[in-house]
Amino acid sequence: MTTLGNGIKKVGLAPNLKSGFYGQDIISVRQFTRENLEYIFAVADEMRAVVKRVGSTDLLKGHVLACVFYEPSTRTSSSFIAAMSRLGGSVIPINEVRFSSVTKGESLPDTIRTLESYADVIVLRHPEVGASQVAAEYARKPIINAGDGVGEHPTQALLDLYTIRTELGNLDGLHVAMVGDLRYGRTVHSLARLLCLYDVRMTFVAPELLRLPLDVLNDIRSCGRPVAESYSVQDAISDVDVLYVTRVQRERFADQAQYEAVKDFYVITPELMAEAKERMIVMHPLPRVNEISYSLDNDPRAAYFRQMENGMYIRMALLAAVLGKA
Amino acid sequence: MTTLGNGIKKVGLAPNLKSGFYGQDIISVRQFTRENLEYIFAVADEMRAVVKRVGSTDLLKGHVLACVFYEPSTRTSSSFIAAMSRLGGSVIPINEVRFSSVTKGESLPDTIRTLESYADVIVLRHPEVGASQVAAEYARKPIINAGDGVGEHPTQALLDLYTIRTELGNLDGLHVAMVGDLRYGRTVHSLARLLCLYDVRMTFVAPELLRLPLDVLNDIRSCGRPVAESYSVQDAISDVDVLYVTRVQRERFADQAQYEAVKDFYVITPELMAEAKERMIVMHPLPRVNEISYSLDNDPRAAYFRQMENGMYIRMALLAAVLGKA
Amino acid sequence: MTTLGNGIKKVGLAPNLKSGFYGQDIISVRQFTRENLEYIFAVADEMRAVVKRVGSTDLLKGHVLACVFYEPSTRTSSSFIAAMSRLGGSVIPINEVRFSSVTKGESLPDTIRTLESYADVIVLRHPEVGASQVAAEYARKPIINAGDGVGEHPTQALLDLYTIRTELGNLDGLHVAMVGDLRYGRTVHSLARLLCLYDVRMTFVAPELLRLPLDVLNDIRSCGRPVAESYSVQDAISDVDVLYVTRVQRERFADQAQYEAVKDFYVITPELMAEAKERMIVMHPLPRVNEISYSLDNDPRAAYFRQMENGMYIRMALLAAVLGKA
Repeated sequence: MTTLGNGIKKVGLAPNLKSGFYGQDIISVRQFTRENLEYIFAVADEMRAVVKRVGSTDLLKGHVLACVFYEPSTRTSSSFIAAMSRLGGSVIPINEVRFSSVTKGESLPDTIRTLESYADVIVLRHPEVGASQVAAEYARKPIINAGDGVGEHPTQALLDLYTIRTELGNLDGLHVAMVGDLRYGRTVHSLARLLCLYDVRMTFVAPELLRLPLDVLNDIRSCGRPVAESYSVQDAISDVDVLYVTRVQRERFADQAQYEAVKDFYVITPELMAEAKERMIVMHPLPRVNEISYSLDNDPRAAYFRQMENGMYIRMALLAAVLGKA
Repeated sequence: MTTLGNGIKKVGLAPNLKSGFYGQDIISVRQFTRENLEYIFAVADEMRAVVKRVGSTDLLKGHVLACVFYEPSTRTSSSFIAAMSRLGGSVIPINEVRFSSVTKGESLPDTIRTLESYADVIVLRHPEVGASQVAAEYARKPIINAGDGVGEHPTQALLDLYTIRTELGNLDGLHVAMVGDLRYGRTVHSLARLLCLYDVRMTFVAPELLRLPLDVLNDIRSCGRPVAESYSVQDAISDVDVLYVTRVQRERFADQAQYEAVKDFYVITPELMAEAKERMIVMHPLPRVNEISYSLDNDPRAAYFRQMENGMYIRMALLAAVLGKA
Repeated sequence: MTTLGNGIKKVGLAPNLKSGFYGQDIISVRQFTRENLEYIFAVADEMRAVVKRVGSTDLLKGHVLACVFYEPSTRTSSSFIAAMSRLGGSVIPINEVRFSSVTKGESLPDTIRTLESYADVIVLRHPEVGASQVAAEYARKPIINAGDGVGEHPTQALLDLYTIRTELGNLDGLHVAMVGDLRYGRTVHSLARLLCLYDVRMTFVAPELLRLPLDVLNDIRSCGRPVAESYSVQDAISDVDVLYVTRVQRERFADQAQYEAVKDFYVITPELMAEAKERMIVMHPLPRVNEISYSLDNDPRAAYFRQMENGMYIRMALLAAVLGKA
């Protein structure tokens, strides 16, 4: 960590991870190089092997994680708690921030500086964009961003990428289609940026109202990767290696007729899957509502629950890495 | 676990435990035979001995329990957390389900399948009858029912039975009276069904409005056990070995005069206890309001706090058993 | 613990700790002698050394702490959870008491007697004065008071005193000024009472409306320590060794003009600190709002975040001591 004077880290973007993960913050997917990713994936592979064989390790015995959630997310907080537990460490779960010091008017930096006096690493979920970056500027201990509003959710993007690599064996050469709400879905934006590091073709499938924002699209184009846009998942299904589905919410449409007109284009059914390749995967960050039929769950190509499990291995890898124990 | 195809367990009632507990769900008291009970009680005895001697074991070191409570129950969740901790394992406490994925519309099966990707065993409390059975049908990891609405709460019934056996040395030959709200009290229904496995005489003491439902009464009668019903605990007190008390709630009575007329029949006082045997016990699932006088707490026959402690040993035994470590 | 008959402890004030901490309740600062304090501080020093060197110990392996918060306090509960974790023990975190048994009408003694059947020690935060004392009267396991309304918060006072000793090397001979809301601040009352055990000069700086209550003032005077009162922190700043700041809340003033007239006297700025000694410290129990400028945080005399960290070491020391492992 670059520190400024009396333990305050330098204000600015989180640094890239070229010099390794020890003591670093995990704030944005922009910090990662291909080498960083390969390293974290290799550690995640080892974590999976350990969990499958003996359930847990003592790698982080004696270490304490403060898991600070300003908004609820059972999935993400459970995944981090499980990860820390399986590494032999302890967790301070703080899910009730709205009832506590914060309601007494305490600033995020003061909350973070208090918690880092108890813990070795802090996982932060916050409704405001940039909250993790602010926390990281004040903290001397590593901060891991577990979602900051419509900003980033880098550990989700890492687990998504890790799932593709684990399921299909590689990343270069793939065709990845992202489907649904591409406008507001930070998950999709972060994953698309990470995929730019690989020789991947991307197709973005969304209704007009929910198309990928132009700045994200331009960023991806500027990496030199082939990019297409489409209204219809039917058009793309037969060619893709990865179908990454997100929810199209009725509430996004002012005109309900418009919603009715498009909604069936974005529900993944066994009929649709009949046109897909034998060797491909369907992913979803969950929770789903009805954009993937439950009847698909037994299809071996349905990778979304394996994707959840991968989240634990990736978070184990990140925790071990930033604490210098990977 | 009987599984159907791709990791989905067979839809239907939870199987009996004749082939042992390893990998099994604990959904209903109907799964248990006398042999199962004796086995679990023997393991609970060992757990008690370990806790008294050294506080905890490392039996479940490296194992993770997801404790999922869709409605609050400090008593039950604390008991499971203590049980898992004293077995050396870790806990993901999920008490805030109403604030999380579920409010985003996620189904119970999806929540369960996500959590089982992080945990080794799931304890589930849910306000709807049958929720645990549904969870068990989808889960590959063991589900333990910690109460499903007015349905079952099997670990409560097991700890009740274990308390009787521990306090009085045996179960056969006893006279057990259950007092209070026998209509809505799932605790009473489950315990009565378990007692059918033993040579026990049962007396059900309740006001007319809160009598034991006929189907439960008939089930017990069909086991061939002697059964009596009464309005008055005074009539039964001198003969019983176990007095199992539950709360008679004012709100159950549309006519308050009716409540006033009966309420004093269902409060256990030192005066009433003067007519009871020397060697008998008073039980209560807690929380109590005023149906047992505080002045009774120092009576050695008041077993309700020891009953609480037994809950931890029974849950230690169940967790160890379903994870194959008992 | 003095017990009365069937496991009920004797009703009355918590005993002094002359015979040691093992099995004792920590309810009030009035229990402590100088010798007790030196002992706890020495253990806290050891705890700090262990944490700095290896992060944690196995001293309380197998022990379970029930952390029962009837009102939220992220800071205090996190500190106790971290303390127990770094001692190798486990925690049952109960933050949702308002949603659970208590809302069903359960009494505090019943809740405590239930939880002590699962745990080895109970930390209790409760909005009512005397709650911890009541809990201690019923519990057979040690109770640690983590704040009872406007009553006491002894572990806060201990960590405050420990911070002064750690930062300045000694306690005798110091001049301690307490600033802000001295009327309602239990933190200030408890610390002042503890300071009476040492040869300390105290100055109490507050607006008229928020002066130290006469009974506390008289208690301190009766110890024979020099005491002064003042309206102005400016008058005291150049002479003090410890400036203990608390918040002056606008809401305490019926007449807002009165608040506006005094508020700037109670904000600690770099300009004010220019008049303070080189070797002195500024403390605050946190959370702060704006009574200490953020621009002071990098001043080496700003001790409030180190004060937080000390809270963990003091709580580790107390937990180990009451469980007989210090």
